[in-house]
Amino acid sequence: MQIQIYENILKSNDYLAEENQALFNRESIFAVGILGSPGAGKTTLLERSVAELEKIHLRPAVLVGDLATSRDAERLQQYDIQCAQITTGGACHLEAQQVNKALKDFDLSQIDILFIENVGNLVCPTGFKLGEHLRTVVFSVPEGDEKVIKYPATFQKANCVVLNKIDYLELQEFDIEKPKREAQALNPNIVWLNCSCRTGKGIDEWINYLKISKEKQFNESN
Amino acid sequence: MQIQIYENILKSNDYLAEENQALFNRESIFAVGILGSPGAGKTTLLERSVAELEKIHLRPAVLVGDLATSRDAERLQQYDIQCAQITTGGACHLEAQQVNKALKDFDLSQIDILFIENVGNLVCPTGFKLGEHLRTVVFSVPEGDEKVIKYPATFQKANCVVLNKIDYLELQEFDIEKPKREAQALNPNIVWLNCSCRTGKGIDEWINYLKISKEKQFNESN
Repeated sequence: MQIQIYENILKSNDYLAEENQALFNRESIFAVGILGSPGAGKTTLLERSVAELEKIHLRPAVLVGDLATSRDAERLQQYDIQCAQITTGGACHLEAQQVNKALKDFDLSQIDILFIENVGNLVCPTGFKLGEHLRTVVFSVPEGDEKVIKYPATFQKANCVVLNKIDYLELQEFDIEKPKREAQALNPNIVWLNCSCRTGKGIDEWINYLKISKEKQFNESN
Repeated sequence: MQIQIYENILKSNDYLAEENQALFNRESIFAVGILGSPGAGKTTLLERSVAELEKIHLRPAVLVGDLATSRDAERLQQYDIQCAQITTGGACHLEAQQVNKALKDFDLSQIDILFIENVGNLVCPTGFKLGEHLRTVVFSVPEGDEKVIKYPATFQKANCVVLNKIDYLELQEFDIEKPKREAQALNPNIVWLNCSCRTGKGIDEWINYLKISKEKQFNESN
């Protein structure tokens, strides 16, 4: 009974996610879902990304999901971008309908890349498509190198992993190859990028990956 | 409709949680729920605790919840304690029924303190009582000092916060007083302990807190 209801919720969410993606396609907006544990560095990655994308003339916008505050949106509003907060009121993940509703206040014609930052949670956002073209898990060194095997569905359903806080590697044991190998075993096409949002290391590769992925999605030539 | 069902699930869970607690009381077992983000250090805190509790002749036991693996239980099985894994099969939190079922394999007469480690998740376990006498949130410095205000329900419903990885304070900005103040505003009775499971700093205070809380719960004199 409980499972049946859950399946129906997921099905109706999937339908709305497809509608979102159709909208993104019509507007040539490349939509990037961002998920990860609390404190993995999702918002910091977006702060870095927004600044770098503007340099290469790709116009970013951000939707941020959070339980209770608008802290993340406030951090991003210092950049000159379209940005909105979705406060879930305690719910543990975003749903496609919330994204659709929040987009109504955006001028979609002025967006090249839309980031959708989920609630900090390595479990629940996994099952809910939002219409994103690309799903990125931000995972950080202090969380420990066992997270891929412990949260397999999240990594299996992602296109890309950004391993953040690699500047912490000197402070703790962490075998980078292990989670990478485990993620590739779950999902052979997964892209793995190492970075430090604090030092800026690896951000270029991430931005380049976004640019190429967008071009591939919309068959854009250089 | 969805909310109604959720309320019914919570109500039936609460009833079973009360049954669990009645069982713990009959057996004079002090039950401690442990929750926190993935990688906050929940299992490491338990490894430290088990070793220290045995020194003061309190017999620990552990139930560990995880999505998919038995890694945490394996880490704890190296200690000579009763320990069982609850694999949730993807579900984002433990429920009282799972705890009740897992306890059937335990010799309860040989336990003084039972730790129940939840799935790594700062959101979902909050709503589900398991029968614990004491609920502890393990929160770690690398997660950043904004987590209390961003995940308020979790801190509001906890008895104690263990701020782990304080040895990372030299590597990053983190204002200890801010989340502590915010947690106390949400919950004036909350106990706040700083520690580093790696260096061992603060573990004594945590063990002492457990000991005193157990004595208070069961009106035990020294």
